[in-house]
Amino acid sequence: MPLTLTPLLGIPLVKTGDDLTQIILEGLIRSGLTLADGDILVVAQKIVSKAEGRMVNLNQVEPSVQAIELAIKVEKDPRIVELILQESNQILRIRPGTIIVEHRLGFICASAGIDHSNVYGETGIPEDWVLLLPLDPDNSAGEIRARLEAASGARLGVLIIDSHGRAWRLGVVGTAIGISGFPALVDLRGQQDLFGYRLQITQVGAADELASAASLVMGQAAEGTPVVHVRGFTYPLREASIKEILREKDQDLFR
Amino acid sequence: MPLTLTPLLGIPLVKTGDDLTQIILEGLIRSGLTLADGDILVVAQKIVSKAEGRMVNLNQVEPSVQAIELAIKVEKDPRIVELILQESNQILRIRPGTIIVEHRLGFICASAGIDHSNVYGETGIPEDWVLLLPLDPDNSAGEIRARLEAASGARLGVLIIDSHGRAWRLGVVGTAIGISGFPALVDLRGQQDLFGYRLQITQVGAADELASAASLVMGQAAEGTPVVHVRGFTYPLREASIKEILREKDQDLFR
Repeated sequence: MPLTLTPLLGIPLVKTGDDLTQIILEGLIRSGLTLADGDILVVAQKIVSKAEGRMVNLNQVEPSVQAIELAIKVEKDPRIVELILQESNQILRIRPGTIIVEHRLGFICASAGIDHSNVYGETGIPEDWVLLLPLDPDNSAGEIRARLEAASGARLGVLIIDSHGRAWRLGVVGTAIGISGFPALVDLRGQQDLFGYRLQITQVGAADELASAASLVMGQAAEGTPVVHVRGFTYPLREASIKEILREKDQDLFR
Repeated sequence: MPLTLTPLLGIPLVKTGDDLTQIILEGLIRSGLTLADGDILVVAQKIVSKAEGRMVNLNQVEPSVQAIELAIKVEKDPRIVELILQESNQILRIRPGTIIVEHRLGFICASAGIDHSNVYGETGIPEDWVLLLPLDPDNSAGEIRARLEAASGARLGVLIIDSHGRAWRLGVVGTAIGISGFPALVDLRGQQDLFGYRLQITQVGAADELASAASLVMGQAAEGTPVVHVRGFTYPLREASIKEILREKDQDLFR
């Protein structure tokens, strides 16, 4: 069976308090898509954060001394640096223009996932506003999934994705930050190759692979297609948390 | 338009000297697939390496003193360590069971991409044989593409992919190691968001995103689906080398 990724049509701009599940259900109907057992919905972090009211007005941020000092080193707005510090467990690397952190959710990313584009708060001045990641993306995915399953009667998976940079390679790639009913990792241990030889590859980053696939369909330039419907995912669905994909600090050769 | 990834059915086991393009063309017919402008073929590194005769009999490898010393530290077969050294520009990290290198092709990966599973050489003893990466994967992709384009009359893209581990996150993901007629990076610089604000994300790792998508369709456990047909890729195709995705050493905070 082919793997098919279809963007939902006509998703409106999402605002704080909007009912995201209802917006997704209407988008499915508008796109002529149904929900069947094993289907997956991939949702851009940005619209989840907006619906959950994670926008911050920079004019209400008071940078700490630490944030001001760091802001000089990285040549960034000290108010944004203050928010990055608040959202992070640890700073891993800095250089002008870049702060790489361990986000409070455990994953490594630039600027704690704080985003400045496509955010448009009450003041109407885009420069005033930034968007933080959802408080608990696994939980956000779980809420969307529960309501989509109730509405459809189908066993579904839900992913919330962001775009992350990588070590060693240029370009961002779609990366899972929250999941529900979907395996972050697929464990192949114990499986054999065609000749009965034990497989060397034992764990597949399936959630990130699907996040990257969906990211291609969403694009980056606009916000028109922040939800993607996936059919034909080949590995079994199961209950999981995105935390299972995070490498333990003492097992990571590149921290 | 949806993004559709379809595995080619019934691809036989590939041997040294096999005509891979012919095998792909027959697989397309067998799968009821056609080639149209903008279609992409994603090919697993393993069958490219096999067709190109990149199998090595470990019994014919003479490990150097350096390989023997390193093999003790990492608890690996010194003959495999010798091949890893030969295939690498630089060793980045080691620990028991793991050698992370800069491959001679420039990318960072474990064990220089040398693979022990699903390899079955003339001796008939799988333990005797390993498989090296293709000598020049961009060139391999280019040869396949030229012949597929000649056979179809369509403008195509070809990716050769492997599975790579990552810093910070567990699980391997499909990663592009050779491309032809396909952008490694999609540059969004100068594009604006919905509100006319400059995009913060400027480069998308499109080749790796599609490699990850195709990897989901190929699976890992067997070699039955090493070629995937892709339709509906959204970014423009262009001439490129995979080298454009490699981060310059002095620009990499995690080397």
